[in-house]
Amino acid sequence: MTVFGLDDSAVRRHIADVSEAGDLDEAAVGERFSRAAWSVITEPGDGAAGALIDELGSAEALRAVLADADHAGPATSGCAPAAEDLARWKPRLRSAEVLRALSLAARVGARLLIPENERGAPGYWPRGASDLGVHAPIALWALGDPQRLNGARSSVALVGARAATGYGEHVAGELSAGLCDRGFAIVSGAAYGIDGMAHRAALASGGLTFAFLAGGVDRFYPSGHDELLRRVVERGVVLAELPCGAAPTKWRFLQRNRLIAACSSATVVVEAGSRSGSLNTAGHASTLGRPLGAVPGPVTSPASAGCHRLLREYDAVCVTTVAEAAELAGEPAEQVGAEQAGSRDSATVVRLLDALSTRSGRSVDELVARTGLAVPAVLAALGALDVDGRVQERGGAWFAQPRRG
Amino acid sequence: MTVFGLDDSAVRRHIADVSEAGDLDEAAVGERFSRAAWSVITEPGDGAAGALIDELGSAEALRAVLADADHAGPATSGCAPAAEDLARWKPRLRSAEVLRALSLAARVGARLLIPENERGAPGYWPRGASDLGVHAPIALWALGDPQRLNGARSSVALVGARAATGYGEHVAGELSAGLCDRGFAIVSGAAYGIDGMAHRAALASGGLTFAFLAGGVDRFYPSGHDELLRRVVERGVVLAELPCGAAPTKWRFLQRNRLIAACSSATVVVEAGSRSGSLNTAGHASTLGRPLGAVPGPVTSPASAGCHRLLREYDAVCVTTVAEAAELAGEPAEQVGAEQAGSRDSATVVRLLDALSTRSGRSVDELVARTGLAVPAVLAALGALDVDGRVQERGGAWFAQPRRG
Repeated sequence: MTVFGLDDSAVRRHIADVSEAGDLDEAAVGERFSRAAWSVITEPGDGAAGALIDELGSAEALRAVLADADHAGPATSGCAPAAEDLARWKPRLRSAEVLRALSLAARVGARLLIPENERGAPGYWPRGASDLGVHAPIALWALGDPQRLNGARSSVALVGARAATGYGEHVAGELSAGLCDRGFAIVSGAAYGIDGMAHRAALASGGLTFAFLAGGVDRFYPSGHDELLRRVVERGVVLAELPCGAAPTKWRFLQRNRLIAACSSATVVVEAGSRSGSLNTAGHASTLGRPLGAVPGPVTSPASAGCHRLLREYDAVCVTTVAEAAELAGEPAEQVGAEQAGSRDSATVVRLLDALSTRSGRSVDELVARTGLAVPAVLAALGALDVDGRVQERGGAWFAQPRRG
Repeated sequence: MTVFGLDDSAVRRHIADVSEAGDLDEAAVGERFSRAAWSVITEPGDGAAGALIDELGSAEALRAVLADADHAGPATSGCAPAAEDLARWKPRLRSAEVLRALSLAARVGARLLIPENERGAPGYWPRGASDLGVHAPIALWALGDPQRLNGARSSVALVGARAATGYGEHVAGELSAGLCDRGFAIVSGAAYGIDGMAHRAALASGGLTFAFLAGGVDRFYPSGHDELLRRVVERGVVLAELPCGAAPTKWRFLQRNRLIAACSSATVVVEAGSRSGSLNTAGHASTLGRPLGAVPGPVTSPASAGCHRLLREYDAVCVTTVAEAAELAGEPAEQVGAEQAGSRDSATVVRLLDALSTRSGRSVDELVARTGLAVPAVLAALGALDVDGRVQERGGAWFAQPRRG
């Protein structure tokens, strides 16, 4: 295929540089190149582009835009790009930009991931990303072995405030390590504070972790997490839907958050100020119908105010332990210890135990008067407690037995 | 009326000693005496007694028990006490006990409160107590001016762990004082820890507070709160459904908790271990359909584990401020500041602001390319931002204006 009037072999070479499989047929090359081009042309979450690609396929959709770019007008068919969309895409339709993004990616060793499996080669695509529908990423750029995306039973997003407290970082670390121990991968956004601790604890416990960036994967952000992100590349995956060379912007952070929510079975906000960006991630999780959890903290801590708002206003589940986070992500709830469950006494037993003493023996009549229970009820309860070894009768007088354990 | 074959004038004198109004007619004396007797005969929450009294009235119900006590048998009519109930009540049917309870009450200055208003004299009865139906208290014994029960717009129960932390006591104090400032009365159980702090802060802020005890009001419990309870008597009310002389037992604590829940518009658990008695109060509030709130705390604090369980399992509302506690108790929610509400930018504006700089002027074409938005969208957003003074045009180049405030 030729797009932009580019040389076929040049396109093929560029695509091979950012692909896992070396031997791609022409359709596979075309699919990948056009998705790379779309990721340059559009801002994240462009629903019109997503719908057009769903309709025509990415290569055909790109051809439609290129054709129409020459004689733009109002859309005449459902399969043709609308004029208002062309007006957004045309100013970015430059082949040089696409080739530059591919070159930058090749230089840092980034791989281009696309939703469909390639013929003859496995494709890697984060579970759940396609649940975003027409707002799903058109392509993803990945640093680190993309096979790892399938390496965990399921993923949990742990996100939160950059301005985290020691408490928040402690909890993030505990949850991350504990979830990794249970076989979950940890998804986060590589920011300072909670995000960084979530990745760090996952790495420290030998778990899998995925970092989604708001700009290109060739420019780690924040720069203070250069070393951390390098370690994520070695043992997990760093991902972005923006092509290499793209700077993170506020809009891109907000859209990046939808990927964190979509690519996880559940999202847990560990600590968040009342206007923290992690509340945006939480909102995406809610919209997608993904389970949403929030870790409570002291009401005196502004760093927990956002979590408390999620509990109050967004029906987030209160998460306090690794087990509860795992349950949120679909692991069967842990059984309450049989001992604890079995220790609930009936009202009659409570009243009878109130009336018994370990030192003074009491007759049944006395117990009847003290408890306000009838004789048969007292006798039945005494019998049951006797079997359990909790009361003892000596010469017509009943004694409570000191509780064991 | 004569019950137990007691002298009419003796009964009248005893009842006058524990009544607000001095001039009671025979029916009023009978009603009060029989309710006092029932409070001696039954354990708290005796639904069979409640149903019988609802059916016959307390005096007639007592007469039915006395009559049947001589020839007990299976109940033959819906209006007669059942044999199994008689078997519970008979052993406690002693006139001496009733007179003793009345004497002890008179000695400490306790008043007998009953649900119905007396003829010619106002009756005082805590709002909501009768919502317990057949499990409502048959009578209440009160120390302190019972008029105060009607002195607040509404009441909030603040309860929690005896083993409270500094954090929990701090929050209990803030909530109690803040709710009093808004005109609420504070209901609690006078225990160490959260309960004590709730009463103390209410007194300190000049508010009304009501303490429900599990034993008689003549024996303050815990004894370490003697002085605190004396101050509650001076400025609020100390209440119990058990007659004077009665000891607190585990069963009575559990039943006392239902009164705290019933006599409040909302219950807020401030701090509670995973098996704290305040979870029982919370359960009663839920059962009664009363709003239930829980204050979150650090997940690392066992003293907050019960609150988190309420948030997870009992659908309790997360309460972090006085305003949220007041809202729970029915006060209209506070408006979010208009400033905050109005500061939400549209997606287009976010993307445009991302692309603008305060230092480098950018043309519309440049903004179109940077934002991935179409020309009309960029122009419309620039126009709106211009009106708000957030952007400025100089010689065809657009600049962001530094944000004020």
